[in-house]
Amino acid sequence: MRRGQSDLVRAFETIDGVGTFAEHTWERPEGGGGTARVIEGGAVFERGGVNVSAVRGARVPPSLAATHPGTEGLPFFATGISMVLHPQNPYAPAFHANFRYFECGDGERPRVWWFGGGLDLTPAYPTDDDVRHFHRTLADWCEAFDRADYPTWKATCDTYFTVKHRGEMRGVGGVFFDELRPPDAERSDVADAAAFEADLACVSAGIDTIVPAYVPLIERHRGDPFGERERRWQLLRRGRYVEFNLVYDRGTLFGLQTGGNIEAILMSMPPVANWAFDHRPEPGTPEADALGYYQPHDWVEPHGGIDATPLQEVSQR
Amino acid sequence: MRRGQSDLVRAFETIDGVGTFAEHTWERPEGGGGTARVIEGGAVFERGGVNVSAVRGARVPPSLAATHPGTEGLPFFATGISMVLHPQNPYAPAFHANFRYFECGDGERPRVWWFGGGLDLTPAYPTDDDVRHFHRTLADWCEAFDRADYPTWKATCDTYFTVKHRGEMRGVGGVFFDELRPPDAERSDVADAAAFEADLACVSAGIDTIVPAYVPLIERHRGDPFGERERRWQLLRRGRYVEFNLVYDRGTLFGLQTGGNIEAILMSMPPVANWAFDHRPEPGTPEADALGYYQPHDWVEPHGGIDATPLQEVSQR
Repeated sequence: MRRGQSDLVRAFETIDGVGTFAEHTWERPEGGGGTARVIEGGAVFERGGVNVSAVRGARVPPSLAATHPGTEGLPFFATGISMVLHPQNPYAPAFHANFRYFECGDGERPRVWWFGGGLDLTPAYPTDDDVRHFHRTLADWCEAFDRADYPTWKATCDTYFTVKHRGEMRGVGGVFFDELRPPDAERSDVADAAAFEADLACVSAGIDTIVPAYVPLIERHRGDPFGERERRWQLLRRGRYVEFNLVYDRGTLFGLQTGGNIEAILMSMPPVANWAFDHRPEPGTPEADALGYYQPHDWVEPHGGIDATPLQEVSQR
Repeated sequence: MRRGQSDLVRAFETIDGVGTFAEHTWERPEGGGGTARVIEGGAVFERGGVNVSAVRGARVPPSLAATHPGTEGLPFFATGISMVLHPQNPYAPAFHANFRYFECGDGERPRVWWFGGGLDLTPAYPTDDDVRHFHRTLADWCEAFDRADYPTWKATCDTYFTVKHRGEMRGVGGVFFDELRPPDAERSDVADAAAFEADLACVSAGIDTIVPAYVPLIERHRGDPFGERERRWQLLRRGRYVEFNLVYDRGTLFGLQTGGNIEAILMSMPPVANWAFDHRPEPGTPEADALGYYQPHDWVEPHGGIDATPLQEVSQR
């Protein structure tokens, strides 16, 4: 995770060209801690960060034990990397990814572990080319690993990153998985080092997908000319991003409720966000077109895209 | 409630001098609806609104029935007025109030009703004079009604309007009450028209307290000179306001989860809010002084105020 953090920070600093990611470390009173690398006011990235954390505990939290029978009362170790990037240019999409690893065991019974995570893209001005590139890159990663499942993970992401009270996704999705293998699956291989290595290889390849999936979109749009109108739309979309993160995001709410490091958790907040009463873009404008992208679409089939039949509307209130 | 709305809109339009409160009505598919009066981009008020709603239903929502035995399955009627004002000038405080009435009955058993509500102030640059004026005006209202209880309601407000993950209040509080009488109190007077009239008089006087409690503070600060520094601090404090409303505010979350009118609910959002990593004002600055106000203090005793011993720190994470 640490190596992933420094590699990613280097890649993002290179493309920014001006801003650097300041380092902030924090400790958790109960054990462990983390390092947040944060950029604010860069040439490309208005605000963003890459966090890693590693935490040990004497007993698995009850909420996790409830969904993972047999882990009650065991010591645990959890580590993760998460990042959010809010570019300045309204045509450059925002990006989020997190990958996490959880392990518990007492050294006697076979240890139990799982990986989770995903990546998703939030453009204020989506284009077919950009969204196809992003999803195609994720699908290529998944297709190389039998533990990965692009169609299921893509659907999970569409559902999860939905601003339910608005009946729209916060962006154009990506992939998201709670566990590489479900907790009730056959666990005869839990102590099998080969199974762990296969999981790790799949997740490491996912982390390695961040740069090729996202950075080309930043290169493409970092210099797009824009004016007040585009900035305004970007800030309104960021308001929806805030609504999602503070009302629905499980990681954010769990962190706030359990005394995580507030600044590292809320690094996901945009630097500036706007709200306006009942804002509805005029039909036929680029902003109205953008709304069509915030519903599930197939992005990897040759016939897919925004003009194809939507897969399904996300659940309306 | 309707009369309260038009009176308050008139008072706020008068002090704004330029902006007007546009009217938006909405209907609820299950019955009832509301009217939102919204100002955006006024001379004084950057964004704000005054909502009224009135809703009937065939059956009391289970969450309410659980805390009010005997109301299960009864038809209900609910009405309320709520308002939030975000002034442009960083020295002019933001303001929130809501008052609501809930009644249920089948025409056979005695009807059950209750009133709830309150007012609170959120200054980016609090001063003793402003906060004392606000709290003194609320205390005067409460002292005139034996159903009202300033000390208890003030403490309820301090606790409720706390951004728990920050260990600070969102502002300087006010008063807040869930019910004029607790649901488990002696209810021999529930069918007593005199008791209802006494409740209504107390709440009506609360609504009448809004203008004298708040408007003088706007008059005092609407023209205060300010620069980028003060605007920046105001926007960071508005970020905390957003955090409170989306993570903790029961009315907001209940409305979003149950399909209320989204725009009327999120009228409380500021027009612009900022987030920055681990922002800490320099000691001795006005911004650092402001933080001291976001903890409970006694504001109505002669010895009270920011320099007195804090009543208690709000619960730290």
